[in-house]
Amino acid sequence: MLQPVDDAILKDLESSLHRDIPLTRSMGLQVIECNGHGLLIRAPLAPNINHAATAFGGSLAAATTLVSWGMLWLVLKQVDRDARIVIQESNISYLRPVTTDFIARCQYPSEAQVTKMLTTFERHGKGRIELQSDIYENNKPCVGFRGRFVILPN
Amino acid sequence: MLQPVDDAILKDLESSLHRDIPLTRSMGLQVIECNGHGLLIRAPLAPNINHAATAFGGSLAAATTLVSWGMLWLVLKQVDRDARIVIQESNISYLRPVTTDFIARCQYPSEAQVTKMLTTFERHGKGRIELQSDIYENNKPCVGFRGRFVILPN
Repeated sequence: MLQPVDDAILKDLESSLHRDIPLTRSMGLQVIECNGHGLLIRAPLAPNINHAATAFGGSLAAATTLVSWGMLWLVLKQVDRDARIVIQESNISYLRPVTTDFIARCQYPSEAQVTKMLTTFERHGKGRIELQSDIYENNKPCVGFRGRFVILPN
Repeated sequence: MLQPVDDAILKDLESSLHRDIPLTRSMGLQVIECNGHGLLIRAPLAPNINHAATAFGGSLAAATTLVSWGMLWLVLKQVDRDARIVIQESNISYLRPVTTDFIARCQYPSEAQVTKMLTTFERHGKGRIELQSDIYENNKPCVGFRGRFVILPN
């Protein structure tokens, strides 16, 4: 998963999200980059604000869930597999309030993780992977997300 | 926490959510009831749909987070305490897809939990509580949520 990701593929991911998941439009989510740090999506604070004028926990949960889903979508594109992506479980730590527009980042899974997921998918029709995402502000972690996803035949 | 909850208080909760957290309007969330089963909020499928025509995981996370937050808000109203509610951590299990409009329910915390939270809040300026929420469809659990919240002086 260290091949560079084409801007057209990122645009395709963003269009799919906006078309198929209307809440991503309400949240103002944008797919911005996939670089050495992982996949990055941005959300403005205004539509995601809460009563304390910081980002609403539900928006932070949705953004970290989505960026992880998006990372797995990219991985499947790169290995040219067609599969349905389903989230099974997530654990989210809210470490500090998010006070401005924010970027959710999903780290690349390791090659070993991807290989294992694809192998069990081929053999048993179901592959499992754990992904990690986060939201930082001023170099400090605000949200930590761990999610277990499965891929299933389409 | 077994006192009946006045409809006016539930309306007040809904208005606060819609006013202070704009995403709750985009999601079409309604506070519908607080009964022997706990606090119930409803969300229509349409604005919360995903690419598989089921409810988007981020919406399910946001709804279960909110109904738990709302439950704690109600508890604080009932014991007449003014405090800020912050989520610290959540664990969400996605057991089955949600295929229609859905209801997120937060169970009442026990009196022992509430007493413990309030005691440490009075003594140390910070009280902690764990809340459980869920989403059922056709009597089957689809989403299970456990969240740790803290209350802090306003």
